[in-house]
Amino acid sequence: MDFALWMAGVQQRTEAALERLLPSAETAPTRLHGAMRYAALGGGKRVRPLLCHAAGEIFGAEGAKLDRAACAVEMIHVYSLVHDDLPCMDDDVLRRGKPTCHVEYDEATALLVGDALQAQAFQVLAAEPLAEPAQQLAMVTLLALAAGSRGMAGGQAIDLAAVGQSLSLEELEYMHIHKTGALIRAAVLLGAHCGHADKAAVESLAHFANRAGLLFQVVDDILDAEANTATLGKTAGKDAAQGKPTYVNLLGVGDAKAKAAGLRDEAHQALAPFGAAARRLHELTDFIVERSF
Amino acid sequence: MDFALWMAGVQQRTEAALERLLPSAETAPTRLHGAMRYAALGGGKRVRPLLCHAAGEIFGAEGAKLDRAACAVEMIHVYSLVHDDLPCMDDDVLRRGKPTCHVEYDEATALLVGDALQAQAFQVLAAEPLAEPAQQLAMVTLLALAAGSRGMAGGQAIDLAAVGQSLSLEELEYMHIHKTGALIRAAVLLGAHCGHADKAAVESLAHFANRAGLLFQVVDDILDAEANTATLGKTAGKDAAQGKPTYVNLLGVGDAKAKAAGLRDEAHQALAPFGAAARRLHELTDFIVERSF
Repeated sequence: MDFALWMAGVQQRTEAALERLLPSAETAPTRLHGAMRYAALGGGKRVRPLLCHAAGEIFGAEGAKLDRAACAVEMIHVYSLVHDDLPCMDDDVLRRGKPTCHVEYDEATALLVGDALQAQAFQVLAAEPLAEPAQQLAMVTLLALAAGSRGMAGGQAIDLAAVGQSLSLEELEYMHIHKTGALIRAAVLLGAHCGHADKAAVESLAHFANRAGLLFQVVDDILDAEANTATLGKTAGKDAAQGKPTYVNLLGVGDAKAKAAGLRDEAHQALAPFGAAARRLHELTDFIVERSF
Repeated sequence: MDFALWMAGVQQRTEAALERLLPSAETAPTRLHGAMRYAALGGGKRVRPLLCHAAGEIFGAEGAKLDRAACAVEMIHVYSLVHDDLPCMDDDVLRRGKPTCHVEYDEATALLVGDALQAQAFQVLAAEPLAEPAQQLAMVTLLALAAGSRGMAGGQAIDLAAVGQSLSLEELEYMHIHKTGALIRAAVLLGAHCGHADKAAVESLAHFANRAGLLFQVVDDILDAEANTATLGKTAGKDAAQGKPTYVNLLGVGDAKAKAAGLRDEAHQALAPFGAAARRLHELTDFIVERSF
């Protein structure tokens, strides 16, 4: 199957699974449930679900299990966007081409949307069998660590502290490994666990995910510097305007693109042990890079 | 052992367990970890951990397992307080006798503290064996449902929508069953599951928890109406000032106290099947009521 077709298929089934796994907007409290669906449905590239499915397919994992793991990760991602857009954080009004959640609803609702989506993610990951029970508990722990203070939320805190600071390349990398990388790693590994991947395979994939996660961020910085708001579906040039350190202002666009190319090569190499079975992860890596050049 | 001594013991071991289970303030990101510890440590009546231990003791559950379950619930509770105190919610400056988290730190940090504490709760519940793995997965699901949009976060949303509205007694009860009741129920049932309680026992305890949860809220409303800020350790009279419906303004103080007495009786009755083994839950129920009269 053609990559574009495969990708569209995963995006479509992710949307359908989120539709199903999120409480109906007719269920009380209706405003909260409507706002959760507003934030989570009908948009986004679904990069994390794509990574989850692509990793799971290496090991022949069932699609229905991958849908749940992918939706759990995507719910964590969406909650982080909703909270990140709040006035006390990035104070952004546009996300995925729509008004942000607190603009469309209100701040208190957006706060609760994020809180409830995080809880929903753990419910989705735990409520149906996805692996041997002991392994599935380890998957819950993995997602909790990826989302928490030593993962994504910790990365946000480092990001906050970095505004207006000049970071070294190492410090910038440390921030992104937490802020974006932890959840991307979780997406890949949860997909692999749905297919009973062994320890060596998980290690290779963790290495792949580390490279792919950074790659994703370097490309994001390039996009933020080069694209305009309409193409991006979110406010462009914001990082620079807020004095946030980025790969582009540390390295310049040219070297940032060279770094992206290097990370792509490393990500590809990490997939070597899986041969043709890792085709979708390979293609996804290219797709991430080609968003920008 | 005397009840006061038992209670002090559980409070002390909960504090010690939280100390241990929260990341150190020396671990990066240090400001976030310091703020998480500020919010979670050194205060609070630890009602949910007390309920968790009291329920677990009926079935001879191990103390170390109960500590983890109790801390998971307490972390969810603390995160909800931190978010509830934010300017876009209740906008409160005092909690447990100290400045609220966003006053002591800043709003963005308080937002992340809540987010990270929720993730930490699921990590604490999943990372070490507390029951048979399949049962423990069910415990994760139980906590996720209790915390999410059909539990605590949903109750907050109903509470928001109710400000300035006149609710019926049924509507007020519906709100509290979600906002406070869901997590109190989770505390009791997670404790019971740590001791391998059977289905009938869990059903009796769920009924007890429903009554105890409402009781707790009715007493809270009475305290809010009658106590002063110094005694309460949080801003008193706020609910009335904000036009929030309470049992006291629906029923008057006298009838609210009568309702509390009735709920106490029902809670006690639900404990009958356990005989003397439920002694601590029995005493805890009395303790909740005696806070006010």
